[in-house]
Amino acid sequence: MPVETIDCAAEELKAESAQVRVDVDKFFANLLAPTGDSRQRLFDAMRHAAIGGGKRLRPLLTIAASRLFAIDPARALRVGCAIEAIHVYSLIHDDLPCMDDAELRRGKLTVHKAFGEAEAVLAGDSLHALAFEILADPDTSDDPFVRCELLLELARAAGPSGMAGGQMMDLIAEGQTLDLPAITRLQQLKTGALIEYSVEAACIMAKLPAESRTPYRGYARNIGLAFQIADDLIDHSGDEAAAGKPLGRDADAGKATFVSLLGEDRARQQAALLVEQAIEHLSGHGEEADLLRSIARFAIERDH
Amino acid sequence: MPVETIDCAAEELKAESAQVRVDVDKFFANLLAPTGDSRQRLFDAMRHAAIGGGKRLRPLLTIAASRLFAIDPARALRVGCAIEAIHVYSLIHDDLPCMDDAELRRGKLTVHKAFGEAEAVLAGDSLHALAFEILADPDTSDDPFVRCELLLELARAAGPSGMAGGQMMDLIAEGQTLDLPAITRLQQLKTGALIEYSVEAACIMAKLPAESRTPYRGYARNIGLAFQIADDLIDHSGDEAAAGKPLGRDADAGKATFVSLLGEDRARQQAALLVEQAIEHLSGHGEEADLLRSIARFAIERDH
Repeated sequence: MPVETIDCAAEELKAESAQVRVDVDKFFANLLAPTGDSRQRLFDAMRHAAIGGGKRLRPLLTIAASRLFAIDPARALRVGCAIEAIHVYSLIHDDLPCMDDAELRRGKLTVHKAFGEAEAVLAGDSLHALAFEILADPDTSDDPFVRCELLLELARAAGPSGMAGGQMMDLIAEGQTLDLPAITRLQQLKTGALIEYSVEAACIMAKLPAESRTPYRGYARNIGLAFQIADDLIDHSGDEAAAGKPLGRDADAGKATFVSLLGEDRARQQAALLVEQAIEHLSGHGEEADLLRSIARFAIERDH
Repeated sequence: MPVETIDCAAEELKAESAQVRVDVDKFFANLLAPTGDSRQRLFDAMRHAAIGGGKRLRPLLTIAASRLFAIDPARALRVGCAIEAIHVYSLIHDDLPCMDDAELRRGKLTVHKAFGEAEAVLAGDSLHALAFEILADPDTSDDPFVRCELLLELARAAGPSGMAGGQMMDLIAEGQTLDLPAITRLQQLKTGALIEYSVEAACIMAKLPAESRTPYRGYARNIGLAFQIADDLIDHSGDEAAAGKPLGRDADAGKATFVSLLGEDRARQQAALLVEQAIEHLSGHGEEADLLRSIARFAIERDH
């Protein structure tokens, strides 16, 4: 691809992703409006975590994938925000003292540091329930079959066979030396399942039969892995100010990562290969898939 | 009602509730079968909390209410187990050191005492997601409208406008002196919303229009309050061995309860009145509502 086309795609990605950040913030500001009773502190904690931060990768993926099938953008945004609510709840609980004991997240204090531990547990639990409430609402889709499938697959991606199961594997992995297949499996559950769902959700909204979803799931699986390798590279040698959190924690904890197992150079090559393969999965599409292609390239060209 | 009729009803409730305990245990044993990978510890923690304990009041209510409308018992059990999964997750998180810091629950060690805090957070999160996965599955109902409504209302009952919101109110209430309306509102969110849902779920499965649900919601609201008052009475002057947990914690924490506000005698009278009103709501039904009537009476005649 000529350099100026890539530049142009990068500019477009920047604009689209800025728009998604604004739209997701608006959605959460509206959803988490002040209650005027003693639950206010809970809503403040949820707003602290859900508004104004993060790359919003998952909603961006849902919105980008929904363009392949000409899905109503407002509905794609609702689904993207449900996924982001799950992601944010998992970050809040992950940051707790009994888990990663983190002080900073997205350049701000973590929820338990700003509001207290009990509040962080409850804010996470509340966002978890809200994700399902968003999807079950008829505003998400007229078709109850679509809503049910969106709900079922999100519950699977978030639960013990997906994200929560991966977090358990990650806990157990501390002090063990995992090999590459084990790290790959852990990552596919811990972060991959929700990233894959972000793309699959658009297929569900488009009522694509399961057998036609293979390339989109392949795309999502590849960029999920590429993102994880890029995260490991940033944790290994990135800039703390750009990342908005302390780095080098995996090495400090003695955790195996793609970078510790492959070395920096091979990890970079592997990520680049995954991005190429992800884009290859989109070969049946024209320019309606350009945003998904740009997201794939961005996976490895970022500093946070 | 003649004494022998009441005795007979009490025997029937005992048998029905024993059967529900067996069925719920079986359901969770099947759902949480060993994984054979490093998520095993997570599943062990979930099994510890979900199997073999508790009154199973919520599934019992769903099953009893589903008899009014001749709903398939296997489906009513699934819905009851989804509600119980939400209840169990909330107990696990409630017991955490940053919340109630409890050591015993249902006569066993709490999950964080038996498995660790991180495991308890993840086991709660996993059961939370599983509840929605159970409901979204076509085995719960052929009708996707029914599944969506079940999911939507459960998410509302569990989230910040229901249970999680009530838990936040409870946190804030420590060190404050709540009055009777405030305590009632707190209880209606913290435990009332899920109890009300347990009965309403049967109405949803029966496709009852919203305006026809009023008596059943009234029944559920009354027994929810009656159960809470009975819990306060047990905490105030009950037997620790029967309760399976330390008692007197509310008084120690200086928390206002129905008993501290009304006194023991008036609290007992109030609970009895609520049970009477609950039963009154069922006057349109014959003996198919007898189990619901027995549950209401049991609300105030128990020691745990």
